[in-house]
Amino acid sequence: MATFGVVAIIGPGLIGGSIGLGLKARGLADRVVGVVRSDRSAERAVQAGVVDQTTQDLAAAAAEADLTIVCTPVADVPAHCQQVAAAARSGAIITDAGSTKERLVAEVDATLAGSGVKFVGSHPLAGDHKSGPESARAELLAGRVVVVTPTDQTDSQALSRVCELWTALGARVEPMSPVDHDAALARTSHAPHVIATALANATPEDLLGLTGGGWRDTTRVAAGSPTLWRDILLDNPQATLAALDAFSQQLGRLQQAIADHDRDAIYRCLEEGKLRRDALGS
Amino acid sequence: MATFGVVAIIGPGLIGGSIGLGLKARGLADRVVGVVRSDRSAERAVQAGVVDQTTQDLAAAAAEADLTIVCTPVADVPAHCQQVAAAARSGAIITDAGSTKERLVAEVDATLAGSGVKFVGSHPLAGDHKSGPESARAELLAGRVVVVTPTDQTDSQALSRVCELWTALGARVEPMSPVDHDAALARTSHAPHVIATALANATPEDLLGLTGGGWRDTTRVAAGSPTLWRDILLDNPQATLAALDAFSQQLGRLQQAIADHDRDAIYRCLEEGKLRRDALGS
Repeated sequence: MATFGVVAIIGPGLIGGSIGLGLKARGLADRVVGVVRSDRSAERAVQAGVVDQTTQDLAAAAAEADLTIVCTPVADVPAHCQQVAAAARSGAIITDAGSTKERLVAEVDATLAGSGVKFVGSHPLAGDHKSGPESARAELLAGRVVVVTPTDQTDSQALSRVCELWTALGARVEPMSPVDHDAALARTSHAPHVIATALANATPEDLLGLTGGGWRDTTRVAAGSPTLWRDILLDNPQATLAALDAFSQQLGRLQQAIADHDRDAIYRCLEEGKLRRDALGS
Repeated sequence: MATFGVVAIIGPGLIGGSIGLGLKARGLADRVVGVVRSDRSAERAVQAGVVDQTTQDLAAAAAEADLTIVCTPVADVPAHCQQVAAAARSGAIITDAGSTKERLVAEVDATLAGSGVKFVGSHPLAGDHKSGPESARAELLAGRVVVVTPTDQTDSQALSRVCELWTALGARVEPMSPVDHDAALARTSHAPHVIATALANATPEDLLGLTGGGWRDTTRVAAGSPTLWRDILLDNPQATLAALDAFSQQLGRLQQAIADHDRDAIYRCLEEGKLRRDALGS
């Protein structure tokens, strides 16, 4: 496979850094440039070895990049794509790693229309409660799913190229519309984050010493960045609220069964949950 | 330290088996006898090496045991304690590993009153979605909390001895009343299990391929045994429902903030959750 040429990664943290490491480990890029906002971030990215070089000049990096991957929080992605497109040469490709897609892709599509720079929305399902380039791993995407969200405006060659990128990093590509992506992720990621947070918030601090592995697992994602998750929830409110309603219905079913002391109904709920969970593996 | 003599473990699965391994590894028992219900369970316990010998004759094991640890599901613990007490010599000690305590301890206290056999309720907070002697580890209790639940009827020497047992296995002992235990565990364990189950149930099967680490963590305990958890919920309904109400209040706060598109309120909820979760470590 031809390499992806010069690859710029805006925001080489956990996801961006893992992409950088994966590209380097597999010889998939001529050079990987990390775009950072501070000397401190540059130092961390270099120390973790996730990119070949860093710069704080987004436009300069974009100007020489064949492919730019925007790995900043979802609220910043459209502006960063616009800045990259303004500096990039015609034919350059941009993709992102944002957790929401409908608003983001519509905004970027509108901004980049007619620019000659080609955008494909992506979402690697590999987030973690850990963050930063120190947690990055070349194999982070191996075996994971990356959703790509083409629209009517998406260039088919750019789409193929971006799919090749994720496949080359070991991921499985799932194409979906931005709307379908947001509806699905509301159920599999955004609502679970809200639920984990509510459970953490509902647990009195003086009982933390009496928690076991169950509480730890169930609340783990609540340790994620509040800023990052606020922006995800602000970006996908309707689908998240619908997913929370579906959850509350199931919770209500269990509450009723417990209140009724209904052995069979409690068992059925628990058995369904176990079957659903076991279908996935640990 | 003098050893705990002959120790009988009724139900040498994950918890019972780990206690057996821990006693053997530390030379804390003269002999560890596993009481099982089937040839298959005997074979598994022996193969995992968690006890010195097995028997299906509970009375025979109880008759020679200085200490019996009942590690069967909560619905079975009172009957097993009664059977042990009927066979044990005067002065023998019984403890258990049940996840609920109020009903269980009251029942065992009533049954054993005046028998000369001494019961102390225990709950090692070391459950897992895995089960069976194959998953047992000598260090399972190291660094974990074991709640002991003395009552007016509890013999103080037996209490000391049972506390010594858990401490010798590396655990930290927390004494609480049975009622306080059930209220606390409703919040830290029983409600989280219900929440994880409801989330698993609310996730359509065709979306399982789009789950990431967040969904996996948040639903992990839903893979636990439906029978075991049904009996826990049937045993502690009021406290569990109260804990679920507290959770629903926090969930409602987040839902309202999302519906209102209230950046600050969403952020505050997420930040509180992160602080609470970070207080515990990963």
